[in-house]
Amino acid sequence: MKIIIVGATGTLGTAVTAELEKDHEVVKVGFEDGDIQVDIADIASIRAMYDKIGSFDALVSATGAVHFGPLGDITQDEWQLGLDNKLMGQINLVMEGAKHITDGGSFTLTAGIISQDPICYGAAATTVCAALEGFAAAAALELPRGIRVNVVSPTILEESVHLFGAAFAGFEPVPAAVAAKAFRKSAEGAKNGETIYVHGRT
Amino acid sequence: MKIIIVGATGTLGTAVTAELEKDHEVVKVGFEDGDIQVDIADIASIRAMYDKIGSFDALVSATGAVHFGPLGDITQDEWQLGLDNKLMGQINLVMEGAKHITDGGSFTLTAGIISQDPICYGAAATTVCAALEGFAAAAALELPRGIRVNVVSPTILEESVHLFGAAFAGFEPVPAAVAAKAFRKSAEGAKNGETIYVHGRT
Repeated sequence: MKIIIVGATGTLGTAVTAELEKDHEVVKVGFEDGDIQVDIADIASIRAMYDKIGSFDALVSATGAVHFGPLGDITQDEWQLGLDNKLMGQINLVMEGAKHITDGGSFTLTAGIISQDPICYGAAATTVCAALEGFAAAAALELPRGIRVNVVSPTILEESVHLFGAAFAGFEPVPAAVAAKAFRKSAEGAKNGETIYVHGRT
Repeated sequence: MKIIIVGATGTLGTAVTAELEKDHEVVKVGFEDGDIQVDIADIASIRAMYDKIGSFDALVSATGAVHFGPLGDITQDEWQLGLDNKLMGQINLVMEGAKHITDGGSFTLTAGIISQDPICYGAAATTVCAALEGFAAAAALELPRGIRVNVVSPTILEESVHLFGAAFAGFEPVPAAVAAKAFRKSAEGAKNGETIYVHGRT
């Protein structure tokens, strides 16, 4: 398959790329690096990306910005960051990409385990992650031509513990290479409208 | 208790008002009618509402606009309607209201059963309803002073079947008066961070 990986150079995206490029032609997309650049918060940038790439068989999004911070301090702009970027950015990857993807192709988006297991300082992120899981379940009912859409919701990655470990106190981290397998499950399998959770054991 | 009901004159809000005003002092808030007016998509309007009402013990929101339509036809503005109004409007009712509510007070927001049981033409609504359920679960971890927040997710109301029945084919409707009890359960009970589903039997 020809698979677009958006966020290919991030912590998760690097692992997803390593997992998928063993068996597939991968197009690496980044915000500033990669083969092609995109700003997912800008629908014109998404359209330009698809025009450059042409037809493809699957897209994996391992990207999306959202604000973390104390609930009472979250500003309107900080709420909007996640809605514009991680939520609508990924929704627009699907809606615009559906015009270009081959029959039976798949989209796999990234949310996060805090959709179901929230943490302090994570209210904006839980809101967006839960929204993404809802979007996939609903969009799966209407996407044409056998196109599928799933979400992967990983727990904290081992590679990110030094950055976010305190916020995820007591969550057993998983290696990014393990989380990457969930994206293969979505892209190569038949699931549609599902959330694939990548849990630690806590 | 002194309970603010936002959307008090709508189909659901009328039933919630009838349920709660038996035992509580109710402040009816509407977009164009009621005792006080608010546009929940405008945070300045929300702040003005709270300044007028002063201290209160509970708020029920039975309002929120979101677009319904075929997935492939949903425009950016139509996605944004639900994010600005039903989602951020209700989140802002909580975030601004937390500055005015009494210790141990509660907020109860309205999402909808399609958060968990999506329907065709409902992708934007499922996205927003799932987001609201996530918000409540996460915000409950951080709200101070014993303040609680829950979401009610009702199935289609008997009173709305003539409008939306075709979209909810096969969903057994419930009377608005039954759905109203879920808001009493949230406001008078001890639940926090939960979604109270009002299911029909299908």
